[in-house]
Amino acid sequence: MDWLLKLAFRQIIERGSLIIRSPSGQTLSFGDGQGPPVGIRFTDRMAVVALVLDPDLKLGELYTDGRLIMEQGGIYDFLRLVHDQPAALRKPLLGRLVDRARLALRWLSHSNGAARSRRNVAHHYDLDGRLYDLFLDEDRQYSCAYYETPEATLEEAQRAKRRHIAAKLALRPGDRVLDIGCGWGGLGLYLAGVAGAGEVLGVTLSDEQLATAQRRARESGLEGAVRFEMQDYRAVEGRFDRIVSVGMFEHVGLHNQRTFFEKCKSLLADDGVMLLHTIGLSDGPWFTNPWIDKYIFPGGHLPALSELMPWIEKSGLVLTDVEILRLHYASTLRDWRERFMARRDEAAKLYDDRFCRMWEFYLAGCEAAFRWRNVVVFQLQLARKQDAAPLTRNYIEEGEAALRRAEAGSGRSAVPEGRRLASV
Amino acid sequence: MDWLLKLAFRQIIERGSLIIRSPSGQTLSFGDGQGPPVGIRFTDRMAVVALVLDPDLKLGELYTDGRLIMEQGGIYDFLRLVHDQPAALRKPLLGRLVDRARLALRWLSHSNGAARSRRNVAHHYDLDGRLYDLFLDEDRQYSCAYYETPEATLEEAQRAKRRHIAAKLALRPGDRVLDIGCGWGGLGLYLAGVAGAGEVLGVTLSDEQLATAQRRARESGLEGAVRFEMQDYRAVEGRFDRIVSVGMFEHVGLHNQRTFFEKCKSLLADDGVMLLHTIGLSDGPWFTNPWIDKYIFPGGHLPALSELMPWIEKSGLVLTDVEILRLHYASTLRDWRERFMARRDEAAKLYDDRFCRMWEFYLAGCEAAFRWRNVVVFQLQLARKQDAAPLTRNYIEEGEAALRRAEAGSGRSAVPEGRRLASV
Repeated sequence: MDWLLKLAFRQIIERGSLIIRSPSGQTLSFGDGQGPPVGIRFTDRMAVVALVLDPDLKLGELYTDGRLIMEQGGIYDFLRLVHDQPAALRKPLLGRLVDRARLALRWLSHSNGAARSRRNVAHHYDLDGRLYDLFLDEDRQYSCAYYETPEATLEEAQRAKRRHIAAKLALRPGDRVLDIGCGWGGLGLYLAGVAGAGEVLGVTLSDEQLATAQRRARESGLEGAVRFEMQDYRAVEGRFDRIVSVGMFEHVGLHNQRTFFEKCKSLLADDGVMLLHTIGLSDGPWFTNPWIDKYIFPGGHLPALSELMPWIEKSGLVLTDVEILRLHYASTLRDWRERFMARRDEAAKLYDDRFCRMWEFYLAGCEAAFRWRNVVVFQLQLARKQDAAPLTRNYIEEGEAALRRAEAGSGRSAVPEGRRLASV
Repeated sequence: MDWLLKLAFRQIIERGSLIIRSPSGQTLSFGDGQGPPVGIRFTDRMAVVALVLDPDLKLGELYTDGRLIMEQGGIYDFLRLVHDQPAALRKPLLGRLVDRARLALRWLSHSNGAARSRRNVAHHYDLDGRLYDLFLDEDRQYSCAYYETPEATLEEAQRAKRRHIAAKLALRPGDRVLDIGCGWGGLGLYLAGVAGAGEVLGVTLSDEQLATAQRRARESGLEGAVRFEMQDYRAVEGRFDRIVSVGMFEHVGLHNQRTFFEKCKSLLADDGVMLLHTIGLSDGPWFTNPWIDKYIFPGGHLPALSELMPWIEKSGLVLTDVEILRLHYASTLRDWRERFMARRDEAAKLYDDRFCRMWEFYLAGCEAAFRWRNVVVFQLQLARKQDAAPLTRNYIEEGEAALRRAEAGSGRSAVPEGRRLASV
């Protein structure tokens, strides 16, 4: 297989230093030798064939299965090397055909009904809560943080994210808030406990998240103000002054985008404001990476703005602001990965070594996608009326400052400490 | 024709008080009689028929021609009354058929080549400069102002707009800037004179604008730093650190959107930042109001984001921020109209009474569209690289504060006073 390795990697690696040990024991070098060397080893010939034929799916599988082994540097270093090539990665014809086929298949098979949505969610979010404690911040914010400075810690950046989102909601005292995809409850507790929402309903499809969120509501004495329920967003009834959805839209799926915006419009009060925080693609519609779809987020779909805008415009919602958070998720994923790797032994005890490799690849691969490719986070603010949200954006910084004071003044954070959160 | 008036207006006017004097001399009343009465008179029977058959085109024509006369209140009051009805205006079948036909025709006939673009521009922007002095601010900013507070004057709001745009460009000292559609030069002079751009090239297709802009550059001693040229954006060559385009994209037209973004990408430096300020539609693609297209802005087209996003994504530009300025243009147009009406006599001397009615209808109709309908302003920030623009938006307010200090410190504004601007 040495000829195949040479054929494939010579085209790709022009810069840096890649050293491959082939299944036959040969050592092959690629690149210009500059920079720290990255070394990989293939355990068997079929691993080489699989990688060359379908790298998008197989790289993650081979690494997870221990058939592609990092001998120098980690999998993240390998991804960096691959993305740091002078010529943009241009797939060979075969690769592009595979892409087209996947695009068509995804389009045809993508339907997230209520039951399937719940299975998709359980696949990821019902993992042992202790796993998430290993790498998330103390509030278990499992979405892109907001790094006000490059030096911010993960904890600081996640607090800043909550503030940023709360400020964009332009909450009025007593507002009824709906949080679609409430996770482990952190944002909902914050909106009720610090930001002054009158009543928060958080919905999730994950048993694990629901149990934790409900316990936190009880423990923080916010039971009267925050309610968490197991509910599909399509089944929610009523009208809300504010709707927030953070990191849930990625699971809505290709064919439910229209439903999502129409449903949100019907749930939003006439002078309501909505904040949708979602990962998306900056360069047009595409399908989810097949490895991510198979192993991490089944049924997920990352939207491009060109995909969302027609549905938003037709829904009758008015788009009032768009922030495009660039590289913030790369920083978040870097912090998650570093934390995870520092406590990898504990993760291996919860699951196993194979799981740890899969998780490392997930975090490293996503970071690469945000750092060097086309993946960003959209914060879309929507309303039913043009002037529901303030007409200049200063209120966001002002709101953040007020929330900072409220956090300090409240004596306690509405958010329980990390130790109390652990779901053991 | 009284029966036709009754048939048409009874459906529409449920609220307020509309009094119509028909061509036969009859007085007809519509609405619930609440609020200040608005009175109109039709001079002839064909005027009634024309209005009912094709209100989008004919209302402006009849008012301009003096065949629909305001007897109580002004044309703006009439538009307010029409938009203030409980049921959204739903066009009858005939109206919707006319719309569809216009949509198709516009799509087929819309091609703004270089020569046609120049004719389109001359139609409006080569009007007597003294006309614009009657209602614009002293810097002749002929685009949406930025009202930091509702009480801001037009002058303040236009100054704030310049600052807002300059801050979003995140200028570095010495930057080369391209201003596509530079108008009478105000923004270019500001970027070079106050904001510290190294070199500004402003291009326009209007002889009148070019002559004024060039004279202002000479008079303000900024000739070395600002150059204004008669040029189509498609013919510009070179690379620019910053590109700004304010109120020009509306003239690019339906079929040149792709060209525009591709051209801008090729003109933008690798670490460049671009700010596109354009009127657009919040609820999806549609055609320009036929009266505006015929009398005010031939060849214009207001884009929806769903129309622009595919071209942006395909161009290779990265969208880094979107501000949706809502109601700011309504305030701008209100200020323009009030100023224009206060100096209507002078306008009538430059042109004639018919022209004044046309201009009043233009300003009133556009204000109505921004205030009560689907028209907004998009400020799109674009770049070639994700991190070309700062990763949080604080730099905008900080930049505005710095520019405010620079304006105060420079002793003189880089922008000549109003009197010096008059093109007499």
